[in-house]
Amino acid sequence: MNETLNTLFNHVSVREYLDRKVDDETLNLILKAACSGSTMGNMQLFSVIVTRDEAMKQKLAPLHFNQPMATKAPLILTFCADFRRFNRYCEFRDAETEAYSNLQSYHWAVIDALIAAQNACVAAESLGLGFCWLGTITYNVDKFIEVLNLPKHVIPVACIPMGYPVAKPALTQKLPVEAMVHYETYQDYDKEKIDHLYAEKESSEETQQLLRENNLPNLAQIFTQKRYVKADNEHFAKVLLDALKKQGFMQ
Amino acid sequence: MNETLNTLFNHVSVREYLDRKVDDETLNLILKAACSGSTMGNMQLFSVIVTRDEAMKQKLAPLHFNQPMATKAPLILTFCADFRRFNRYCEFRDAETEAYSNLQSYHWAVIDALIAAQNACVAAESLGLGFCWLGTITYNVDKFIEVLNLPKHVIPVACIPMGYPVAKPALTQKLPVEAMVHYETYQDYDKEKIDHLYAEKESSEETQQLLRENNLPNLAQIFTQKRYVKADNEHFAKVLLDALKKQGFMQ
Repeated sequence: MNETLNTLFNHVSVREYLDRKVDDETLNLILKAACSGSTMGNMQLFSVIVTRDEAMKQKLAPLHFNQPMATKAPLILTFCADFRRFNRYCEFRDAETEAYSNLQSYHWAVIDALIAAQNACVAAESLGLGFCWLGTITYNVDKFIEVLNLPKHVIPVACIPMGYPVAKPALTQKLPVEAMVHYETYQDYDKEKIDHLYAEKESSEETQQLLRENNLPNLAQIFTQKRYVKADNEHFAKVLLDALKKQGFMQ
Repeated sequence: MNETLNTLFNHVSVREYLDRKVDDETLNLILKAACSGSTMGNMQLFSVIVTRDEAMKQKLAPLHFNQPMATKAPLILTFCADFRRFNRYCEFRDAETEAYSNLQSYHWAVIDALIAAQNACVAAESLGLGFCWLGTITYNVDKFIEVLNLPKHVIPVACIPMGYPVAKPALTQKLPVEAMVHYETYQDYDKEKIDHLYAEKESSEETQQLLRENNLPNLAQIFTQKRYVKADNEHFAKVLLDALKKQGFMQ
């Protein structure tokens, strides 16, 4: 197994960071990796906002529901789907400026932003850093747009605090690879298959402890009743759709 | 510089592949890498469809506008945003099954699918394979859903043909890293900044040749008038939105 595969296979989310800065040299390697990935038509439809300033972290913290990763990490990278730069290029070259004000164009920019974000993560982990994706960036997208001063055609899609790990956690228990893989066409999931694929996860001590803490009979209900509840999801779906309209991607 | 950074920094899109199969051992390493990345709440909201069958490649080819990469590659990986498996899990555990039928949930699944896709790409490149993302997957999303037999709550977001390169192309000319990076807040682009950031790209021989071939005064107009034209983008935006509705993500 080569070193790159070793980095990929041993990924873990790190939520506690040492009080140690990420130096500019390391940051620049991570940013270079972010900018080295595939991109739609070589348009490079993303931007990354680097947060290191303490006052800015404090402003962003409530939007991340004050999760400690958002305040304690020395470095936060926020990746945005960005058609602004390319549209400005078009504007200054007398080209059509409203060709990319639609959902398809947004989708391309999301893809570019996430390729860049994951490249940054792989680079960071190879350099001994730890990180953790914050789902909150997709919830409070309207407020992040305001605080980060994002113009039309820019929407944040990934927010990743990074730092040197206090400790390297154990690997997260995941579904077996076969759960995600289909050959030639999609093979749907019946009860037997679901039971089989989730068996190890459901019987783990980690799950058992969660069931006791939540006083619920299974993991699925912890998700639907506690973690990601229908009404919240639908609320944040509306926030996202409104942001897409406001940022000019639904024309 | 470590080996992982070396892999990331030297990424190039490869469009011509040797007539050499990707063996199962190699494929399984790539799939394992795809399944080792970060994922929203550890829900693993993606699936990957492996295409190796010749008849299936022929069926998919017209949806990829018959680009040679789609027919000539020995292996194609199509990554899908997938809430189906998790929803089935909820269904079989008497949990709420309509909590994730919204745009926010789709967004999470897109993120998971793209993290997986980019991990697969990095793994593949570290193993000597070449690949190229096909934007066509986002255009003809309705038809891919049909051919790949994707059920409700599954939408393809990335399609990546892979194979051993006939030759390793030169690095693609990109904007300087500073073009994509903002510190603390977004710094908007004025004409001077755009001129500066695009200067090297615009003056390159590659660009000059494109301008001659297209008989157009600049690169921006090649994009807006030839490559990604407003009417096409808006058409495919409608196709995508319709697919989101049909697949149950706009409730």
